[in-house]
Amino acid sequence: MRDPRYDILFEPVQIGPVRTKNRFYVVPHATAMGMPALDEMIAFRKARAEGGWGVVCLEETMIHETSDHAPLPDPRIYNDKYIEPLSRVVAAVKEHGALAGVELAHAGASGPAIYHREHPLSPTAKFPHYFINPISARTIDRQDILDFRRWYRDAALRAREAGFDIVYVYCAHNLSLLQDFLDTKTNKRTDEYGGVFENRVRLLRETLSDVKDAVGDRCAVAVRFAVEERRRHSNITALEDGRRVVEALADVPDLWDVNVSDWAWDSGSSRFFDEGQQEPFINFVKQVTSKPVVGVGRFTSPDAMVSQIKRGVLDLIGAARPSIADPFLPNKIDAGRQDDIRECIGCNACTAEVMTYSRIRCTQNPSAGEEHVSGWHPEEVPAAHDPNASILVIGGGPAGLEAAHTLAKRGYQVSIADAGDEWGGRLVRERRMPRLSAWGRVVDYRVGQLQTMPNVNMYLGSFLGADDVAGFEADHVIVATGAKWRKEGVGRHHDEPIPGHDLPHVLSPEEILSDQLPKAGNVVVYDEDYYYMAAAVADRLARAGCKVTYVTTASDPCPWTHNTLELVHVVNSMNEAGIDIVVGSSITSITESSVALSRLIDGKETQIPADTVVLVTGQASQDDLYHELVSKREAGLIRSVERIGDCLGAGQIAQATYDGRKAGMRFGTVPARLEAVEG
Amino acid sequence: MRDPRYDILFEPVQIGPVRTKNRFYVVPHATAMGMPALDEMIAFRKARAEGGWGVVCLEETMIHETSDHAPLPDPRIYNDKYIEPLSRVVAAVKEHGALAGVELAHAGASGPAIYHREHPLSPTAKFPHYFINPISARTIDRQDILDFRRWYRDAALRAREAGFDIVYVYCAHNLSLLQDFLDTKTNKRTDEYGGVFENRVRLLRETLSDVKDAVGDRCAVAVRFAVEERRRHSNITALEDGRRVVEALADVPDLWDVNVSDWAWDSGSSRFFDEGQQEPFINFVKQVTSKPVVGVGRFTSPDAMVSQIKRGVLDLIGAARPSIADPFLPNKIDAGRQDDIRECIGCNACTAEVMTYSRIRCTQNPSAGEEHVSGWHPEEVPAAHDPNASILVIGGGPAGLEAAHTLAKRGYQVSIADAGDEWGGRLVRERRMPRLSAWGRVVDYRVGQLQTMPNVNMYLGSFLGADDVAGFEADHVIVATGAKWRKEGVGRHHDEPIPGHDLPHVLSPEEILSDQLPKAGNVVVYDEDYYYMAAAVADRLARAGCKVTYVTTASDPCPWTHNTLELVHVVNSMNEAGIDIVVGSSITSITESSVALSRLIDGKETQIPADTVVLVTGQASQDDLYHELVSKREAGLIRSVERIGDCLGAGQIAQATYDGRKAGMRFGTVPARLEAVEG
Repeated sequence: MRDPRYDILFEPVQIGPVRTKNRFYVVPHATAMGMPALDEMIAFRKARAEGGWGVVCLEETMIHETSDHAPLPDPRIYNDKYIEPLSRVVAAVKEHGALAGVELAHAGASGPAIYHREHPLSPTAKFPHYFINPISARTIDRQDILDFRRWYRDAALRAREAGFDIVYVYCAHNLSLLQDFLDTKTNKRTDEYGGVFENRVRLLRETLSDVKDAVGDRCAVAVRFAVEERRRHSNITALEDGRRVVEALADVPDLWDVNVSDWAWDSGSSRFFDEGQQEPFINFVKQVTSKPVVGVGRFTSPDAMVSQIKRGVLDLIGAARPSIADPFLPNKIDAGRQDDIRECIGCNACTAEVMTYSRIRCTQNPSAGEEHVSGWHPEEVPAAHDPNASILVIGGGPAGLEAAHTLAKRGYQVSIADAGDEWGGRLVRERRMPRLSAWGRVVDYRVGQLQTMPNVNMYLGSFLGADDVAGFEADHVIVATGAKWRKEGVGRHHDEPIPGHDLPHVLSPEEILSDQLPKAGNVVVYDEDYYYMAAAVADRLARAGCKVTYVTTASDPCPWTHNTLELVHVVNSMNEAGIDIVVGSSITSITESSVALSRLIDGKETQIPADTVVLVTGQASQDDLYHELVSKREAGLIRSVERIGDCLGAGQIAQATYDGRKAGMRFGTVPARLEAVEG
Repeated sequence: MRDPRYDILFEPVQIGPVRTKNRFYVVPHATAMGMPALDEMIAFRKARAEGGWGVVCLEETMIHETSDHAPLPDPRIYNDKYIEPLSRVVAAVKEHGALAGVELAHAGASGPAIYHREHPLSPTAKFPHYFINPISARTIDRQDILDFRRWYRDAALRAREAGFDIVYVYCAHNLSLLQDFLDTKTNKRTDEYGGVFENRVRLLRETLSDVKDAVGDRCAVAVRFAVEERRRHSNITALEDGRRVVEALADVPDLWDVNVSDWAWDSGSSRFFDEGQQEPFINFVKQVTSKPVVGVGRFTSPDAMVSQIKRGVLDLIGAARPSIADPFLPNKIDAGRQDDIRECIGCNACTAEVMTYSRIRCTQNPSAGEEHVSGWHPEEVPAAHDPNASILVIGGGPAGLEAAHTLAKRGYQVSIADAGDEWGGRLVRERRMPRLSAWGRVVDYRVGQLQTMPNVNMYLGSFLGADDVAGFEADHVIVATGAKWRKEGVGRHHDEPIPGHDLPHVLSPEEILSDQLPKAGNVVVYDEDYYYMAAAVADRLARAGCKVTYVTTASDPCPWTHNTLELVHVVNSMNEAGIDIVVGSSITSITESSVALSRLIDGKETQIPADTVVLVTGQASQDDLYHELVSKREAGLIRSVERIGDCLGAGQIAQATYDGRKAGMRFGTVPARLEAVEG
């Protein structure tokens, strides 16, 4: 079954005292599960092991309470009481033949330092890296350093006792006390742990040595290391101290897990980074060490993976997001089913959940994070209660396609209809906007699957009215007719229409998405949506030759993109495109040649010229058909109807696929209306 | 023992079918505990009942998963499985003779809508009120309204089964679906639930009626109602629809719990609001209804409480923050110990924890939120292991005073010394800054207590060197020598000194706190602290006649004050004082007459004139003495030493009192260095 070209991916790799079954490696990545959500964590990690990954690692697992990331629910290992629960995660992973890894970490000044009420630790006193708490991290003293080393050693011993095969020392993402020691910006010490390189690397060297001494007999000792800090100027680069660390410690760890820093560059979104983007930074590592090397690249193509190995870049194919989007990626390649891979679209909906302290989610794979909570499996679905039952899905966007696919897999008779001439709903047009092409995989995967299924009928160019639907006589109707952008400017700040919204030069994203572009001139793009659309519109118009000013009521441009790790890249790309940015300001009125702005903080008013204004504000669900069908149901003319996705309430695509999966899973089980009460 | 003037506070009040033991009433307020932290919630609420409050209520308790505030850990009652855990909270409250109340709530569009992955509900589709999620709340339809009423009724039945005496319907704080129905900005419906007043109040009326029908036999039914929305222009005011609601439903509920909206105006901080500030808005209510009325006012003075009752404003003295700061306030008044009340300082450190999803904390009362986690009681402390053991506390600021007080209560021989001529440490000067005088209560309470204790020696004007300390021969030394503001501009954005920081017209807060004010002229106040100090400095200098420009690297001014519910008031006060605000900009250099700014988002450079520059950036711990004492301990010249508070790491005052309590509690129990490992 397996294509022999991919055999190399299934070779075992020796890592210190342990041996993988193949080269597929789930690197440590956050899930926002951890101790408070142990059952969720077990179910999530187990699904990846079941799908064939040779190694499945746990994310940052805290070696001390001063490192606790709460309210983010992190794994913890700073007390013996955590051994038993962690051993349950290990057992779940090993049940499927995978090795279990754990990333022992001390966050130093990068944590929120909220729940534990202790002073965070730092080589030199400073404010926290990422949080704005009114607390300073404190300078760790000699005793603290001895304590730190003891915490790591004790944590490693607990990890071994819990059964982990691979034990990490963590020095990456600008989220680690050990990285703070390497960085000359954060380490201003004058003792033997500061100053020259050998001093700054001392604690990392000692920690690795301590951990090897403690558990190296039975566990592989890995180091997660950022070879280059890319957010800001730093001595840690692949040409300077990043390389020197690898040279200095070359064969000390059993495994190098290498990447770039911080998270926004490591897990770069598809809007700004291509598959394999880290290669130029990390490709020196294998030339320096004789130990195996793992790295990531949002790899979803087995050919790209093979190339990494054959060209000597990596020994193990690391993955976070591709394993979230398709836990069964290795098994699919093994079975010659690589065309069935649900490829990560790089949207970073996963990181957004972690950043907001919720459990991980995935646009492509709605079962991610729902393995325990909803009992959803990545690949398997419960059989139809009645394989003759028929469902009509109206609308072929992400929600409708996902519902149809789930129901078809369950064995129902599924028809899906769309009024347009291309599958994809909102994505038909959005995937053609700048930087968004990878998002089209949401459509391609589902359409590709549906087209092979004998119990599915697909109808494009099929506008259905309520009478048509009633005539169809389906057992259940799912309305997924989407939403349209509002034209009058009602959004987050505006409860009422913006004066002047009805002037002819005022557009909504609808026109831009349909390529009805303004002629070159001054364009104001107004963002009350706070996610990607306003930036995409601004980008599109700047490329078309317009002079674009981006205006938002938010204090930061496109603020939700902070959570998708894109904000800094959005801003950089706007600067490169020559787009002016105005934040914290509302449009109070629009005239034929300008917009009036009011700065929210002090009410100061300005005018800026505008030949065209694009209002990226709220969206309105297209739910007329749904309401007509409800009337028909009440009149006994159709049996059952529900609405999902943007038709229910406009949201991100991950919400649409979640809604679609939920509708597909619950049909034939509990009445939709009662479900929440019993949940 | 009790002053007869206060007898009226101890009269019972009949509320529907239940009767209180006195007029002290803990209104529902957030704690960030809830179901995931049930033991913490029980211990927290129990402590208030033990302290004598006649009623202790639980905060917003969610009637449906679409209302879930996770990642904020809220109480939930949308499933029968929550009855048993909630009954344990009830039992803990009733054990001490208090009535137990529960605020049944549906958050509508005000929740984060993250964890549950459902579309939030709204009278009319709109974006969430407070969060920037990429999701629209959906318009609730007729079936949803029937469901909503059923959820409320079912939740009330569960509340009765759990044993609650008072069951709330929640319509306040701009955090409630029911308030969204009243508000013409959020209710654009054209059916019988929108439009004219009687339509907009319909769902509140129906819900109250449903709940009374369901549980009114045994439970009092209360309504939490915001008589006036003060954040923005609204039809809900005490002269318009706020009053009309009270008139329309006057005797429908058994109790009116009234306040103003939203939370930033209800729990207004002492920097911007006085005790009793809500009276002008709520004082009409008792004239309209014959039912008892409860309201809040940050009341800590029994005389003010008596006045509220005698003047017919309130029947029950509601409290959130005063009960957090002193759970034993009623018992202290009852025992004639009103001078021992630990008065709330109105700093809103409590709300900041809730806003950041951590459990509640209190500057004045470090045991708040620690009742279960640390086993700390608000009033009782474990007895000294050896009453002859002596402790020397060096530094009479919040940390030192709290440590001394805790140790003295435990029965140790305590000496506390301060080099200055007034107790209070940082607060000696900070309490004299604009708007911060109430914070002085942190000092006054502790000094007042210490001065009555026979086992305490207090030394002002006593600078102690390391040799002096060694000569003191204490069994333990606690160093609480505080921190000083840095002068070179190293802060959150700046890792290196700012060029020009050493010019003579560049000041730090130290000079302003010491009243070394610049002459009138252009002043730039630079905020990398992000909390209150830069605003206090700007305020002080504006009052002194300077033309002040506030500059910060943050996207919002004083961004931590978002969490203390002060940001909007900080901004308003800056505008009133004529202070210009520049956000998102760093100072790249300082010359003799100007500062050079760089906008972080695009690097655009500007110059602004500055005769004086005040750098409110980082602080440096004053830890020289501590390090000298560590050397002496290693040389065997003193027995034991630790550092706490700003001397360990500069932080908010709540951190200092927490550190002080922790040091006081653990002395004589476990070795400080091992404690964390065993935690």
